[in-house]
Amino acid sequence: MIIVMDRYADDEDIEKVRRKIEEYGFISHLSRGEERVIVGVIGDNRVHDFYERFKNMDAVEDVIPILRPIKLVTREYQDEETVIDIGDVKIGGEDVVVIAGPCAVERRDHVLLTAMTIKEAGAKVLRGGVFRSRSRPEDFPGLGKEGLEILREARQETGLLVITEVQSPRELEMIYDYADILQVGARFMNNYELLSSVAESGKPVLLKRGMMATLEEFLISAEFIMKKGNPRVILCERGIRTFEKWTSYTLDLSAIPVLKSITHLPVVVDPSHGTGNARYVPAMAKAALAAGADGLIIEVHPNPKTALSDGVQSLEPQAFKELMEELKLIARAIDRNI
Amino acid sequence: MIIVMDRYADDEDIEKVRRKIEEYGFISHLSRGEERVIVGVIGDNRVHDFYERFKNMDAVEDVIPILRPIKLVTREYQDEETVIDIGDVKIGGEDVVVIAGPCAVERRDHVLLTAMTIKEAGAKVLRGGVFRSRSRPEDFPGLGKEGLEILREARQETGLLVITEVQSPRELEMIYDYADILQVGARFMNNYELLSSVAESGKPVLLKRGMMATLEEFLISAEFIMKKGNPRVILCERGIRTFEKWTSYTLDLSAIPVLKSITHLPVVVDPSHGTGNARYVPAMAKAALAAGADGLIIEVHPNPKTALSDGVQSLEPQAFKELMEELKLIARAIDRNI
Amino acid sequence: MIIVMDRYADDEDIEKVRRKIEEYGFISHLSRGEERVIVGVIGDNRVHDFYERFKNMDAVEDVIPILRPIKLVTREYQDEETVIDIGDVKIGGEDVVVIAGPCAVERRDHVLLTAMTIKEAGAKVLRGGVFRSRSRPEDFPGLGKEGLEILREARQETGLLVITEVQSPRELEMIYDYADILQVGARFMNNYELLSSVAESGKPVLLKRGMMATLEEFLISAEFIMKKGNPRVILCERGIRTFEKWTSYTLDLSAIPVLKSITHLPVVVDPSHGTGNARYVPAMAKAALAAGADGLIIEVHPNPKTALSDGVQSLEPQAFKELMEELKLIARAIDRNI
Amino acid sequence: MIIVMDRYADDEDIEKVRRKIEEYGFISHLSRGEERVIVGVIGDNRVHDFYERFKNMDAVEDVIPILRPIKLVTREYQDEETVIDIGDVKIGGEDVVVIAGPCAVERRDHVLLTAMTIKEAGAKVLRGGVFRSRSRPEDFPGLGKEGLEILREARQETGLLVITEVQSPRELEMIYDYADILQVGARFMNNYELLSSVAESGKPVLLKRGMMATLEEFLISAEFIMKKGNPRVILCERGIRTFEKWTSYTLDLSAIPVLKSITHLPVVVDPSHGTGNARYVPAMAKAALAAGADGLIIEVHPNPKTALSDGVQSLEPQAFKELMEELKLIARAIDRNI
Repeated sequence: MIIVMDRYADDEDIEKVRRKIEEYGFISHLSRGEERVIVGVIGDNRVHDFYERFKNMDAVEDVIPILRPIKLVTREYQDEETVIDIGDVKIGGEDVVVIAGPCAVERRDHVLLTAMTIKEAGAKVLRGGVFRSRSRPEDFPGLGKEGLEILREARQETGLLVITEVQSPRELEMIYDYADILQVGARFMNNYELLSSVAESGKPVLLKRGMMATLEEFLISAEFIMKKGNPRVILCERGIRTFEKWTSYTLDLSAIPVLKSITHLPVVVDPSHGTGNARYVPAMAKAALAAGADGLIIEVHPNPKTALSDGVQSLEPQAFKELMEELKLIARAIDRNI
Repeated sequence: MIIVMDRYADDEDIEKVRRKIEEYGFISHLSRGEERVIVGVIGDNRVHDFYERFKNMDAVEDVIPILRPIKLVTREYQDEETVIDIGDVKIGGEDVVVIAGPCAVERRDHVLLTAMTIKEAGAKVLRGGVFRSRSRPEDFPGLGKEGLEILREARQETGLLVITEVQSPRELEMIYDYADILQVGARFMNNYELLSSVAESGKPVLLKRGMMATLEEFLISAEFIMKKGNPRVILCERGIRTFEKWTSYTLDLSAIPVLKSITHLPVVVDPSHGTGNARYVPAMAKAALAAGADGLIIEVHPNPKTALSDGVQSLEPQAFKELMEELKLIARAIDRNI
Repeated sequence: MIIVMDRYADDEDIEKVRRKIEEYGFISHLSRGEERVIVGVIGDNRVHDFYERFKNMDAVEDVIPILRPIKLVTREYQDEETVIDIGDVKIGGEDVVVIAGPCAVERRDHVLLTAMTIKEAGAKVLRGGVFRSRSRPEDFPGLGKEGLEILREARQETGLLVITEVQSPRELEMIYDYADILQVGARFMNNYELLSSVAESGKPVLLKRGMMATLEEFLISAEFIMKKGNPRVILCERGIRTFEKWTSYTLDLSAIPVLKSITHLPVVVDPSHGTGNARYVPAMAKAALAAGADGLIIEVHPNPKTALSDGVQSLEPQAFKELMEELKLIARAIDRNI
Repeated sequence: MIIVMDRYADDEDIEKVRRKIEEYGFISHLSRGEERVIVGVIGDNRVHDFYERFKNMDAVEDVIPILRPIKLVTREYQDEETVIDIGDVKIGGEDVVVIAGPCAVERRDHVLLTAMTIKEAGAKVLRGGVFRSRSRPEDFPGLGKEGLEILREARQETGLLVITEVQSPRELEMIYDYADILQVGARFMNNYELLSSVAESGKPVLLKRGMMATLEEFLISAEFIMKKGNPRVILCERGIRTFEKWTSYTLDLSAIPVLKSITHLPVVVDPSHGTGNARYVPAMAKAALAAGADGLIIEVHPNPKTALSDGVQSLEPQAFKELMEELKLIARAIDRNI
């Protein structure tokens, strides 16, 4: 961290800043420029609160962090890529993992049919929500426990792993026995009570980027889970909000190389929510793969026209199969497997 | 709602759409343009799900809602402005209500001192957080129950009402007896489990706009609370995320006249979080008042330099008093009182 | 400027950076932290290119400017507020200047009528475009020379100053003799050929903030005009693009206190383009005034329903008069005059 | 277009709207819903101004376009993909065209070396700016005529086509004889004077998306060029501005499938400006190709560390060659050629 004094700063102001730095157990280091004095703080001051502490002092113009407010998630801390082993599936290794399934678990036959289809096409994980976040009380709330039983049955029938979203510690208790991976939704990326719960569960966590979160903030949430003792975090880009109107969100694929350069955690992309339109999903799935994603999470529904949730962005089984064939060709071209 | 058929739509496609409209109990109405056929849906189809239902049908190009997905919050439903009576305080009437206090409750003496200062200056409600959302496990978690007791004491000493943020149903149980108004934070605007809880509590709710929420989405959350039986909702603009870097957020004051034209609910503005810098708070507080806000929520701390939370954006007591004097003059100029 | 070396930097890397700093005639200053080495650059390196020069060097992690890339526009350079004298009108002083008129000059009688109305109501400057930027070749192109003659006549009849937009050096030649103030539109904020021309004209320039420009970028354009020898620059906030859909843009009123804290130049606000809706103009005009704007630029049209351009956001004369009365009351409350 | 009357509309209001529709030579069509009356306008009213005309009428709540304000650029108008033939190069066909070269033409030897390198690696077009848009008068202005001569020499030596940016009609006169393709920069996407000039030149135009432009606005600019008689327009996505700070812009790759679904024009992607960092260029180039781009425009510089412009985002020749090999593999996997 460096502290930039303003042009009116006198020796006393500077001395106060230095004393405060030393109170925190760090070493200060002065540099007098022609127009500004800069005070460097030597030590691991990767501490967010510090900004507050110093920004307010007299004659302090700016407080500039040198180290990012993240550590455990970075390649500096761990250079080797994190590979998350779940049963036979490895997320973050050479293989690219495809997660697929309906937005919400609605009917047993649909889920079983979808599971078999995606398994055959090469997917490794089945997705499906059982608790829905509803903006209107009268909407479909999700099947809850019954939905979890359906997912379990599909898991047993196909050998697919199961991922489902958890929105509160209360839900986690119920979900725990059914899910191989817990999903934290974009709207919950900053819900630290929930992040604590999923961290403590010990299960792998797929953390979705908030639609208004910078990549730094995204990694701060991942860091939170790791600090709470759970290193099995999968990052998921799912689109950010912009002024563009022809897509639901703007899927930020540059997040893939940027995250990969900073963190050792696996990066997965959700082109379904990211575009909001099944028509654009194949192009964006292929692009994400080519950009280096470790996995894809794609909505598939046997009959999108009747889906109670997100039908517009769900692929039909046949379209999914065709996409998987195309993805396999691209994977080969970049020396990966699906 | 109107359904725009694409240019390839044949009579059978159109017929299917009409039958589906009628299945839902509505009346369809056909209009053949030169390049497109439009099918109108007659009836109160203010139902979000409908978009999904029809968007996916063959040869449907677009589904355009005519009625907004809100009802109870609108002036069409209730033309008269909602005035929320809490003890002697009325929010939404002629008087402009000022809410003030520290970001987080940290020390008893500070809170009592702040409470007396703001009371004297004309504020009506004391704010102060007791459960803090922390991005790092080691940060100050808030005083919890102890903080609530401090707020209660300040309330008794000064007669000020108390508002505090609630982040989960579990917290609400503890907070219920202490708070006159419950605050739902920007990050929780879409947390429907929490919205249900605060709705069911029957207490007045100050709902903050999410930093990435459109005004329509903001009103959908307010509608949710009203639908759950609680009409005492106060809307709070607190800044949206943009590309601008010199303020934390961009405080959207046009939200005031826009919301006022659509809804009967009171609108309050938070210039402290909206700018992130005490230096800009007075200008934005005055602007919000002039634009027609029904209230202001301002952070005040007896010694911002030592605050554990958000010191940079907190006004010192003296600056707050001066601001209140300026606000009173502007209030008079626009025929309101503070 | 400080240069942050990455964790792999060895002595040779650091030495290369120091040598390069010294080649530019600056002094380098080394600070070894626990995890990073920082090299400070002592001297007035307020030079944008430097970033490029050093960012690319081996083992350089980041290049952080300490001084902003602006100088002439800042209060450090000139503490006293710039007051622009044009005839009897002073922009930037105690008086708040209201600029009003139609978006485009369409009819002589309309312009004369509008000019008389706004003059009477207290406006000091008449606005009106004569060259329109048209996204479709068949749209109304503006009256050109004929429009300028109408503006001149209105000027002579009323004594109002005239402001009109200039979009190219070629147009400037024609406009020069007619305009008291030249307006540079938001879409042209970065057009340096145009900025050069208006700078060289010596006329006062009202520079509109680009709808995607940060405040720093806005000031860089103002700095460009000042560097080219023209210190008479008026900054105009007119709304930035965000995800919000119920207004054309999001009028960023926090730009007022932020700009005022950094620059000595006058700041004017355009609530008409900023909201895109006449209904919201009065509230935002009042807010801008209360926030400390030095002027307002408001669209007025005698019959908005027939306007060829931007009728939706134009006030009718009667509404403008009423607004002016309200503005005068607020001006008085904050010790200013209109 | 449909016109939604507000809930207070009486028969007279509706009648006025119908009469106005008929004045314009269209047919009106009434639909009475339970809460709103809708008036449809039958005819090709793909005219932007109409919004203004009706939005302002009494009791009109909203005016909703049904047809997009574009025609010539759409697949409805021309289903077959536009292939732009320039010498031996086809842009928009099966082959994916790579455009490469330095940001600015700086030195003859560098440009010739770069041209030979990229030619050998498989690029078809050489890029290089000769007039630079400078935010500070003292910056490098570009080599102008001398730069054009260098590009001509490189063209003769290698057989590569040449593309260069044009920023004003005046520059176009000079550039005309040297360039095979004219580039319109993002900051000029809305400069209709410039768009007219490049349209009238008859040369192929590579039009960059403004960093704050929606895709609809982007296509409106392309439509403008086509309406002015020049059908040879190449669309270029180059990143939009968002709140993300770790990349210069957010490269919106979903623009590729969205544009492809609406328009017959070729779509090219610029990962260099889109990310602002050479480190992320290969991943995004590969992603753009996989998403269906018809071309890529990539900055290459023989010694990025000494570049006067945009060195940080330029690939070194060796990195470019490696990227081309990877691109060729992906192209093969998706049945295209480079």
